[in-house]
Amino acid sequence: MQAKFRPKEKIPVGILGATGSVGQKFVQLLSNHPWFQVEVVAASRRSAGRRYRDAVNWIQSDPLPEAIGNLPVHDSESDLPVKVLFSALDAGVAETVEQHFARKGHIIISNARNHRFHPQVPLLIPEVNPEHLKALESQAFNGGKIVTNPNCSTTGLVMALKPLMDAFGLEKVHVVTMQALSGAGYPGVSSLDALDNVIPYIAGEEEKMEREPKKLLGRWDGQSFREAPLVISASCNRVPVLEGHLESVSVKLAEKARPKALIEAWRTFKALPQQWNLPSAPKQPIHYFPQDHWPQPRLHRNLEHGMAVSVGRLRPCAILDFKFTVLSHNTIRGAAGGAILNAELMAARGELY
Amino acid sequence: MQAKFRPKEKIPVGILGATGSVGQKFVQLLSNHPWFQVEVVAASRRSAGRRYRDAVNWIQSDPLPEAIGNLPVHDSESDLPVKVLFSALDAGVAETVEQHFARKGHIIISNARNHRFHPQVPLLIPEVNPEHLKALESQAFNGGKIVTNPNCSTTGLVMALKPLMDAFGLEKVHVVTMQALSGAGYPGVSSLDALDNVIPYIAGEEEKMEREPKKLLGRWDGQSFREAPLVISASCNRVPVLEGHLESVSVKLAEKARPKALIEAWRTFKALPQQWNLPSAPKQPIHYFPQDHWPQPRLHRNLEHGMAVSVGRLRPCAILDFKFTVLSHNTIRGAAGGAILNAELMAARGELY
Amino acid sequence: MQAKFRPKEKIPVGILGATGSVGQKFVQLLSNHPWFQVEVVAASRRSAGRRYRDAVNWIQSDPLPEAIGNLPVHDSESDLPVKVLFSALDAGVAETVEQHFARKGHIIISNARNHRFHPQVPLLIPEVNPEHLKALESQAFNGGKIVTNPNCSTTGLVMALKPLMDAFGLEKVHVVTMQALSGAGYPGVSSLDALDNVIPYIAGEEEKMEREPKKLLGRWDGQSFREAPLVISASCNRVPVLEGHLESVSVKLAEKARPKALIEAWRTFKALPQQWNLPSAPKQPIHYFPQDHWPQPRLHRNLEHGMAVSVGRLRPCAILDFKFTVLSHNTIRGAAGGAILNAELMAARGELY
Amino acid sequence: MQAKFRPKEKIPVGILGATGSVGQKFVQLLSNHPWFQVEVVAASRRSAGRRYRDAVNWIQSDPLPEAIGNLPVHDSESDLPVKVLFSALDAGVAETVEQHFARKGHIIISNARNHRFHPQVPLLIPEVNPEHLKALESQAFNGGKIVTNPNCSTTGLVMALKPLMDAFGLEKVHVVTMQALSGAGYPGVSSLDALDNVIPYIAGEEEKMEREPKKLLGRWDGQSFREAPLVISASCNRVPVLEGHLESVSVKLAEKARPKALIEAWRTFKALPQQWNLPSAPKQPIHYFPQDHWPQPRLHRNLEHGMAVSVGRLRPCAILDFKFTVLSHNTIRGAAGGAILNAELMAARGELY
Repeated sequence: MQAKFRPKEKIPVGILGATGSVGQKFVQLLSNHPWFQVEVVAASRRSAGRRYRDAVNWIQSDPLPEAIGNLPVHDSESDLPVKVLFSALDAGVAETVEQHFARKGHIIISNARNHRFHPQVPLLIPEVNPEHLKALESQAFNGGKIVTNPNCSTTGLVMALKPLMDAFGLEKVHVVTMQALSGAGYPGVSSLDALDNVIPYIAGEEEKMEREPKKLLGRWDGQSFREAPLVISASCNRVPVLEGHLESVSVKLAEKARPKALIEAWRTFKALPQQWNLPSAPKQPIHYFPQDHWPQPRLHRNLEHGMAVSVGRLRPCAILDFKFTVLSHNTIRGAAGGAILNAELMAARGELY
Repeated sequence: MQAKFRPKEKIPVGILGATGSVGQKFVQLLSNHPWFQVEVVAASRRSAGRRYRDAVNWIQSDPLPEAIGNLPVHDSESDLPVKVLFSALDAGVAETVEQHFARKGHIIISNARNHRFHPQVPLLIPEVNPEHLKALESQAFNGGKIVTNPNCSTTGLVMALKPLMDAFGLEKVHVVTMQALSGAGYPGVSSLDALDNVIPYIAGEEEKMEREPKKLLGRWDGQSFREAPLVISASCNRVPVLEGHLESVSVKLAEKARPKALIEAWRTFKALPQQWNLPSAPKQPIHYFPQDHWPQPRLHRNLEHGMAVSVGRLRPCAILDFKFTVLSHNTIRGAAGGAILNAELMAARGELY
Repeated sequence: MQAKFRPKEKIPVGILGATGSVGQKFVQLLSNHPWFQVEVVAASRRSAGRRYRDAVNWIQSDPLPEAIGNLPVHDSESDLPVKVLFSALDAGVAETVEQHFARKGHIIISNARNHRFHPQVPLLIPEVNPEHLKALESQAFNGGKIVTNPNCSTTGLVMALKPLMDAFGLEKVHVVTMQALSGAGYPGVSSLDALDNVIPYIAGEEEKMEREPKKLLGRWDGQSFREAPLVISASCNRVPVLEGHLESVSVKLAEKARPKALIEAWRTFKALPQQWNLPSAPKQPIHYFPQDHWPQPRLHRNLEHGMAVSVGRLRPCAILDFKFTVLSHNTIRGAAGGAILNAELMAARGELY
Repeated sequence: MQAKFRPKEKIPVGILGATGSVGQKFVQLLSNHPWFQVEVVAASRRSAGRRYRDAVNWIQSDPLPEAIGNLPVHDSESDLPVKVLFSALDAGVAETVEQHFARKGHIIISNARNHRFHPQVPLLIPEVNPEHLKALESQAFNGGKIVTNPNCSTTGLVMALKPLMDAFGLEKVHVVTMQALSGAGYPGVSSLDALDNVIPYIAGEEEKMEREPKKLLGRWDGQSFREAPLVISASCNRVPVLEGHLESVSVKLAEKARPKALIEAWRTFKALPQQWNLPSAPKQPIHYFPQDHWPQPRLHRNLEHGMAVSVGRLRPCAILDFKFTVLSHNTIRGAAGGAILNAELMAARGELY
């Protein structure tokens, strides 16, 4: 793998499911991107043919980018004139549509859950398992490729675990999440369920959190993915927060370690995206805060444009070894931003052509 | 211990710290109480001499009870003309003031934390450890007595643990809380810290949750309290909910058990307050909900007038044996209501004279 | 009109649209009603045939009443075996279904907007215009009758205006609302639109508020309703509050008046429901608070079981004469509770047979 | 007044009251400012001597700027080594401290309310009344000067009124506000008062809103300020929103106008800050949205870095002529950002030396 990269000209890209809430986040983050140029927005047949600004119910606090607002909306089931497609599709249709485009030779950078456990599809966090991209060579999509990023609640957790695993080994992880409302999409959770309330359940979420880290922290052996031998217990709760998943984590390490060493591992953690200086990469992937009452969603979710993970409150756990608090931005690092960083890594490796 | 009881005439009681948020809850819950008559409200010197309605910044959603509103506010440091005193004092003054009144022969039913680990003071939940009241005989307060109730986040947890401990034995407890804002008192948490946010820290709370259950689930051996040999790990978070602490709990039992048996243990759990039909006792102390997304603070905190504990989501834990969700009302069952039930138990045992 | 009344036996009633959020409020408020017995719950064909407890997604904080939970759900389009029907139907179907049942001889007590301006249908608030019930004699529904209650934001406003109109005459009303989320039904407003936000628009609401008070404060001349000659300007906003509509009101009176006289008019206001002591009638329909920062939704919406209206902050208006703040519970007084009080008034007048 | 300006080197500035919530906003907005360099942060004696990062309880979601974090905190009552001082002082001390520094020759750009109605002190919004700066020549502070910006709820209103006044004349303004919690400072409003609630009162706010627009829209006659002959009625409410004041406004114009003309007046409005291209000036001071349900605090408060004002929902008012909704960012445009724009205007006019 070589050093810093800059494409000679911007790579044209498209967005599948562009009108939904994750699709809007792709539009927002890809507007003015130094490497990528959004040339195609696609959505369901109902929206097709209208201009994006008229088809979308824009709910982001940044204004709708002028140029993308003027694009015509393509039908997600028709042919699309760009090779690289970001997928913000609902799980209900993602499997069929993504495979369809992959078979037509497109490169799909997907945020959907459907192909995360496909035996040749990388489940990718560039700071964690960039070497999993080698699995792409085994993909048999007729020239196309599919790469996925993990569930929003998995991403922050695994980024915080990675330096610990590298330094001390990791055996058990107990995590309780307090997840933001935006994770449920739009309209998602009713305000009558959200205000002055916590919902102690998110369908399918605990299963994802107990499974995805094992693939992410595992390895590609040249033919298949080998899961890391972790024991994970996850409990997922929805809290009245707009953005930013907070997680109370307990871990059992393979080796004894002192708190200072864990903090050091987090603070010094750098990986390929930082070395290659990828455009969306946070300078420091993990920020450890010594303050008792930090990190907090409202204060720290936007750190490094929402791409950094915040950690705090490291202390002994009476049952496992240590406990701490993790925060990451669920719709940026945990969704659209994570997918874009995946694409940047692939571009830098020459895999988007 | 004998059967049902009704005092011949109402027992006159007082409230220390009556103008604060817990004090207001005492006022609300003791108004129209069938056994107790609030005759004295006491507060700091600043409020003394005014009528209660003028001294208090009433923030409850039930109107201020007419009769109590008209009472004059006594100075918490002067003599008080009733024997039984509920203490809603701040920890900063509770130790001195409660001991002062106990030494003058008063019976103090305290919600403050200061005497919870005094070697002769019961830390009491009537459904859990009524036999700890025997420790009162050892108290040397010159005729007075002090009884305490646990921290708001401890109460719900220990009530949910008690039937499991009785049926299967209990070895380890891992708990992550999502606690309501009212637990911090008034004005307590700033709205700028609360809205769209979670604060992953509550000063002193984790220590209380890791220690109090051991005394509550332990025993009085005639001379001292023996702690239950539990391992407890607690992580405490403040969420934007007005009332009702929700807790994600994992437990390791001493014996193997099937989920059905745990649910049965919760559903059939009855204790002295139910047998004696104490006025504030919930008919069913623990409600188990089979719905995936229950219990929820807004829906279930007021169950049985806020005195019942709700449990749901029982499922296997990959690290310990089982995990589940517990909810209880922090300012009723976890504070004023819990203290009043303590007083009712004492009254029924003839200990308030 | 005669004095106090009590039916010899409970009047059997049904609820149309019983599974929706307003329908649930009817279930909650009619459970244990001293005069009415819910014997029929009806909903769309999709729910019909199931037991109510299985068909409903119960979102009230009081538990689902046992007996009503066991009732089978009827199809809203089939025949129903009780004469009196409360209608919580959506406006999309209410017109057809209510007329259908009225023509079959049923008495419809409707919360839907569809018949509010039907030339023979009373738009009724028992404290405001009970004499409008005389219009029922003109109704030509083949023996059946329809009575409606106003929009949730209208009710509180008109109750606060009525004593002023009686005492001083009323010429102009300027009102800006801050309305609760529950007014939009369930799931209603997305949590992503509600948290940390205000939506300055509620479809159709301003039109209702500018029109309904004129009918309510007008008169029935024996043949048709004559609107009161008021000028009303309304601006409606949705705020992140669960229950309770707050309104900033300015008024121009026909006669000069001193602030004391307005307060006196509100405080002494009593009407037929109070004189007849109807079961759901608030003892004091309007509570005026002298405190600068009252009324507040969370503190005062439940006053008198949610049936009283709170008023505060009376002061001069530089443009009209006076301004003040009004609060009322939108799903109790402004919807189900208002309709039930309508039915109680009709029962007491002998019109439910 | 001449054209575009750029200082040869950055102007050193200080911040009085730098640790409070408005002070923090000054720090945030002045960090990396192209014209100003924060060299001094001052606060109460209690904080003096510590580094800013240690003295401040930083509650902004942007990280504390490194360089300013390292500055030592000066005592607000000692001598300060920069001429230009931004004042974020509490009203309780602002009068004395600001006059003290003005008399020592400092230029005070104040956000405090104390000198807003001083007969020689401009109450300034650069887009509205830049000519009021001429009053500075009359100030007799021994070489120093004081300039103030209006209350946070006044600023958005007056910016929306200014183009209407210029085009059609303005006679009456009726405004009801829904104001953000941040307007009350930190800790400010208790979360127990804020969640699921509206507080219909903000001390002193209605008086400010009824008076300040008259000075802002009035004129400096060479010797004194002449108020505009407006009639204003304001009602102020606090809603559970973090940032962004929303206002329901009704106006009576001097001349008849068609809605299109009002929208045109807003959309084409440009003033000195735009012509001179001041660094903090929004390109378009007023954004009019045709969408029924816009503007909304969460979507539009950050428009043009929080310096633009959003307007929407123009429609006829049955009592005055028109009504519409105004939104502006209360701690940026309505406080620190507004003060900074004032300083930029003064710098461009050569008045900061």
